[in-house]
Amino acid sequence: MTDKNRATPEKDSPRTLPTTPDPAAAKDLRLLLDGRWASTRDTFRKAISGETGKKLLHDPTLSMDDAREAMLGKLGILAETEMQKGVFAPENGGEGDTGATLTGLEMVGYADLSTMVKGGVQWGLWGGAVDALGTERHSHYVRDIIDLKLLGCFGMTERGHGSDVQNIETTATYDPETKEFIVDSPTPSAEKVYIGNAARHGRMAAVFAQLYTPESTESHGVHCLLVPIRDEEGNTLPGVTIGDHGHKGGLLGVDNGTLSFDKVRVPREALLNRFGDVSEDGVYSSPIESRNRRFFTMLGTLIRGRVAVGAAAGAATRASLTIALRYAMRRRQFEGLPGKEKRLIDHRAHRLRLLPRLARSYALAMLQNQMIERLHDQTAAVNRGEWDVANPTEEQLRKQRETESRAAAVKVAATAHATDTIQECREACGGAGYMAENRLTIFKADSDVFTTFEGDNTVLVQMVGKELITAYARDLSELSPIDMVKFGVENISDVLRQRTTIPLTVQSLIDRVSDREENSLFDAGYQVKIIQEREHNLLKSLARRLKDAKKMEPADAVKLVDKAQDHLIDLAWARIDTMLIEALIEAEAELPTDSPAFPVLEQIRHLFAFSTILKHAGWYQEQNILTGNRTKAARAAVNDLVDSIGPWSGVLVDAFGIPDVLVDVPMLNDSGVDPVE
Amino acid sequence: MTDKNRATPEKDSPRTLPTTPDPAAAKDLRLLLDGRWASTRDTFRKAISGETGKKLLHDPTLSMDDAREAMLGKLGILAETEMQKGVFAPENGGEGDTGATLTGLEMVGYADLSTMVKGGVQWGLWGGAVDALGTERHSHYVRDIIDLKLLGCFGMTERGHGSDVQNIETTATYDPETKEFIVDSPTPSAEKVYIGNAARHGRMAAVFAQLYTPESTESHGVHCLLVPIRDEEGNTLPGVTIGDHGHKGGLLGVDNGTLSFDKVRVPREALLNRFGDVSEDGVYSSPIESRNRRFFTMLGTLIRGRVAVGAAAGAATRASLTIALRYAMRRRQFEGLPGKEKRLIDHRAHRLRLLPRLARSYALAMLQNQMIERLHDQTAAVNRGEWDVANPTEEQLRKQRETESRAAAVKVAATAHATDTIQECREACGGAGYMAENRLTIFKADSDVFTTFEGDNTVLVQMVGKELITAYARDLSELSPIDMVKFGVENISDVLRQRTTIPLTVQSLIDRVSDREENSLFDAGYQVKIIQEREHNLLKSLARRLKDAKKMEPADAVKLVDKAQDHLIDLAWARIDTMLIEALIEAEAELPTDSPAFPVLEQIRHLFAFSTILKHAGWYQEQNILTGNRTKAARAAVNDLVDSIGPWSGVLVDAFGIPDVLVDVPMLNDSGVDPVE
Repeated sequence: MTDKNRATPEKDSPRTLPTTPDPAAAKDLRLLLDGRWASTRDTFRKAISGETGKKLLHDPTLSMDDAREAMLGKLGILAETEMQKGVFAPENGGEGDTGATLTGLEMVGYADLSTMVKGGVQWGLWGGAVDALGTERHSHYVRDIIDLKLLGCFGMTERGHGSDVQNIETTATYDPETKEFIVDSPTPSAEKVYIGNAARHGRMAAVFAQLYTPESTESHGVHCLLVPIRDEEGNTLPGVTIGDHGHKGGLLGVDNGTLSFDKVRVPREALLNRFGDVSEDGVYSSPIESRNRRFFTMLGTLIRGRVAVGAAAGAATRASLTIALRYAMRRRQFEGLPGKEKRLIDHRAHRLRLLPRLARSYALAMLQNQMIERLHDQTAAVNRGEWDVANPTEEQLRKQRETESRAAAVKVAATAHATDTIQECREACGGAGYMAENRLTIFKADSDVFTTFEGDNTVLVQMVGKELITAYARDLSELSPIDMVKFGVENISDVLRQRTTIPLTVQSLIDRVSDREENSLFDAGYQVKIIQEREHNLLKSLARRLKDAKKMEPADAVKLVDKAQDHLIDLAWARIDTMLIEALIEAEAELPTDSPAFPVLEQIRHLFAFSTILKHAGWYQEQNILTGNRTKAARAAVNDLVDSIGPWSGVLVDAFGIPDVLVDVPMLNDSGVDPVE
Repeated sequence: MTDKNRATPEKDSPRTLPTTPDPAAAKDLRLLLDGRWASTRDTFRKAISGETGKKLLHDPTLSMDDAREAMLGKLGILAETEMQKGVFAPENGGEGDTGATLTGLEMVGYADLSTMVKGGVQWGLWGGAVDALGTERHSHYVRDIIDLKLLGCFGMTERGHGSDVQNIETTATYDPETKEFIVDSPTPSAEKVYIGNAARHGRMAAVFAQLYTPESTESHGVHCLLVPIRDEEGNTLPGVTIGDHGHKGGLLGVDNGTLSFDKVRVPREALLNRFGDVSEDGVYSSPIESRNRRFFTMLGTLIRGRVAVGAAAGAATRASLTIALRYAMRRRQFEGLPGKEKRLIDHRAHRLRLLPRLARSYALAMLQNQMIERLHDQTAAVNRGEWDVANPTEEQLRKQRETESRAAAVKVAATAHATDTIQECREACGGAGYMAENRLTIFKADSDVFTTFEGDNTVLVQMVGKELITAYARDLSELSPIDMVKFGVENISDVLRQRTTIPLTVQSLIDRVSDREENSLFDAGYQVKIIQEREHNLLKSLARRLKDAKKMEPADAVKLVDKAQDHLIDLAWARIDTMLIEALIEAEAELPTDSPAFPVLEQIRHLFAFSTILKHAGWYQEQNILTGNRTKAARAAVNDLVDSIGPWSGVLVDAFGIPDVLVDVPMLNDSGVDPVE
């Protein structure tokens, strides 16, 4: 931007990359991006290439009814790959390879988000509920779910309680006389809404409800039961009312609808009874004493859906960037040198709109891979019997909490980035970007609800913030008074650093950073430190603001907490940025320094770091963490970096390895662009 | 945000508004928002209410073909109001009331952007071209265009030259033997693309082409000719090729298509000959000598379309805010006090996402009204014969340039704001916001291309910046050396202030501001000064950076200009923000200080000013214009302001006066929200 000349030049500024990119770099970057399930990715790449891939693409000319019917065929294509089996437990006919299924679902996001969502509803939500909350008596259902013999619904959200699941109104009351549960929607606001598979294809639903038994007038909390909603011919069953949401902002092929129940009776065995059961004579029992922990344990087993949504949002974003950047490399517009039109990528404004977003997509892809690994390893431990979900060890409980918090953070980060970046890609392709055949508007419309479902981002991001502040309070209380004196307030950051699981690679880089100003902005450790500093600073100041809330009258406490809501949200975003830079640095460490990809990935990290820091340039100066001279230098560096990375855009998107048939849209080959070399 | 406690408190902080809003405020605000065409607005409000309004709404269940057919009926509804007549010249059957038509088209944006665009294509672009570029021999066409007897196309954009109109490739070559023009698309990239009315309804097209006569091998520049493309039965005419763009990201009812011509012959009189004509024997003549000025004069007459697009984008944004804020006032979610769920508006994060955008919408509405007045007055002067477009006075030329630059700026501001705000409204309504019946996704999809058509925002914003830098250079060169010494570099800002037409109301406020730091952030004059300071600062530094470009080798100059592209764009956005705060202040000055609307509009202005300044909090500190303490204070003020304005959200959107039938969507009345009081 402005006044570059007045900023102090930074030492260790990286060299401008060669203007002729080395295609070999794409190969090494691909290895990194593919991660632990590289061979799954390669198999799946073949599966969604060619004619099969074409069949998955959304056809915007279809009516809603036809799009919904076509969807069944697409779901069949996925089922044939058997990609869905990984996520299910071996005793239910699955393969216990969570990472493989999640990686597969992610890659469906390159092709068609409707298909990904329909698959996610069937196998992730509906199948996931039965698999994770049910017991051996429900195992045969899972087998039918896996091979699409039993399509079903995940009935959690209610009209009156979008994100507030703990307060849903649907009831399931046990009747010892008939040994049945009576499932009921007592009020209009108890209606289940936005339920996938409900409007057309679902035959059964996993219904979340407050559980009542004769022994008490109080609910045992939210539990889940299997309720048939349609017969074999597709007729709605008695007592069930099904509504159709009709047209939505996108995802036309997914049949979202509403469900409500008028005293529908289901057998006692319909209760998914892993974490809570009712005996024949109506006595409630659970392996988990605390109602609250029981609720969160149940929810915790369902985060695979949340992880899949973040992953697919990331894939759709990478596909959009691939399309927009390939267009930018070929499309000519406006004269540069006399008689020679410039390519879009030759305009700096164009580089600035797409390349920082590309850098963030790289960071997200790395973080997403870590997330899948983490969830996979945890599920594997459960499958091996080393981890009892109902009775975890302290260490496992801590890990589980961190997994949930990270899953929330990654979902928020990936879906918010998708909304922002796919929009930018659409606009960066001008009128051509608005034509459905070029796919960007389809990605945009379909991904739009990803910020809302599987946990609304606004709610999830506060959950991330709350977890941070709770852990902080706990850690502080665990410090002895002597420790407190020893550390002092100034060194609370050290406490923070010791607490969160900072990767070793990253920690050693931070340790090398001195506390003086002359650290180069291009030093990786210093970059993490600056980004992390915002997280720690916001955490400490928020703790200070909230510390009196407990002693207050409820009305005052509510007001205090509301006034700090934006602070809490900022904290969570700062945490997300820390996670992203850490993931990038860890990925970088895996690359041999003599790889042709090394210098370009390094510049991607610089670009991510500086554009992230600059979003808060005002704050950093207010807090005296960075001087105005340094933020100016960072701004100049962003400009230099997009200039340097520009010619490498093609290589950077090639590395995503998206099958051609999914991204080779008409505008890339029309007469307004250069022919492919 | 954070550390509010550490910020120095500002003097003159406004009082928190009463928590019970005064509905009388809506009436006074409505008067301001309705502006000069208040009675047109009221008439049109009635016209698009009730059953008629319902007929205008987009039905998402329609197929593309049916949506296109339905569109003709909607266009008929508009035609019956005669709203289109205003924009046409009296000698062509119009009423010469530009403001009335533009206001009407704007309000169609409350109902359905497809209808607005279809009307804009027919009357604004196609009709506008014939009206403004043609002469008496084309008058009968205009009459048929007004009453929909002749639907037509505006054939400007080509595949190879989206925004770069001066370099289009279509040719119109005069053949003196037959006294005809031969219209031809010599290359595939000469194909006309994205042309509204082309795919289905258009019978004729206004085709922009390079004009050739036998006297010279060089083009006389871009001119416009009438070319029939379909016969009465709708069959494509010989030599014409029509393509169909099919599905787009939105605007399904608008039949965009492609046109190309294979040596199609049209009579000599088909040339719209107001600014350039060819005699029977093939001699070219024009009232405007300079080829360049001729081109820009032609384009200049067409800005009504650009103004209409900005206006309708603003309307769609206000309709979306009305829906989202009414939902926020009624929808309850999550517990506040025990047993009592909070309304969405009671969450500060929710207020922060919607209310600063509402404030900007207010500013935009005021600016848009000024824009329409300006264009109206200019057109009226032309109609009265006081302004010869082909031979304007120096003063008129300057005014015309400023009108064009302002039209570009307002279009960019309104459409970018629409993209951002409608998206935020959709997300703020959660799952309900994604259901098509609640209209937000329709507004989003339809408005999405507004940033691209009628001048891509990226191109227009640079045009705004270039006009500023050109005028600056001109002004500086007009200063005598003695003046230069007298003013000195430090006082260039005074030169700038004298140059741009700052409204008197605003200037007097600025004049009262002292140069010392103790000005209150709540002082209107100081707010303008800070926002304006960014514009002036960026202008001066850009001029410094570019001053050597003229002396350079072309290749180096191209590089230098590219490296300053982001600077140029920042400058234009700073100019836009100045225009917006000025418009708000002028509106405020029209309101009696005893109006119940006065304190709320004042807080809207504060909110706009602070949220605008905070977008550049980093820059303001880098440039030593604001200290960190002051940006912190501004941030604290934004929080206080959204808390204060929150309960007034209903009044603030009521003031827009959007007919109920257009915004009373199902989610406002379902069982998840409070009943309307």
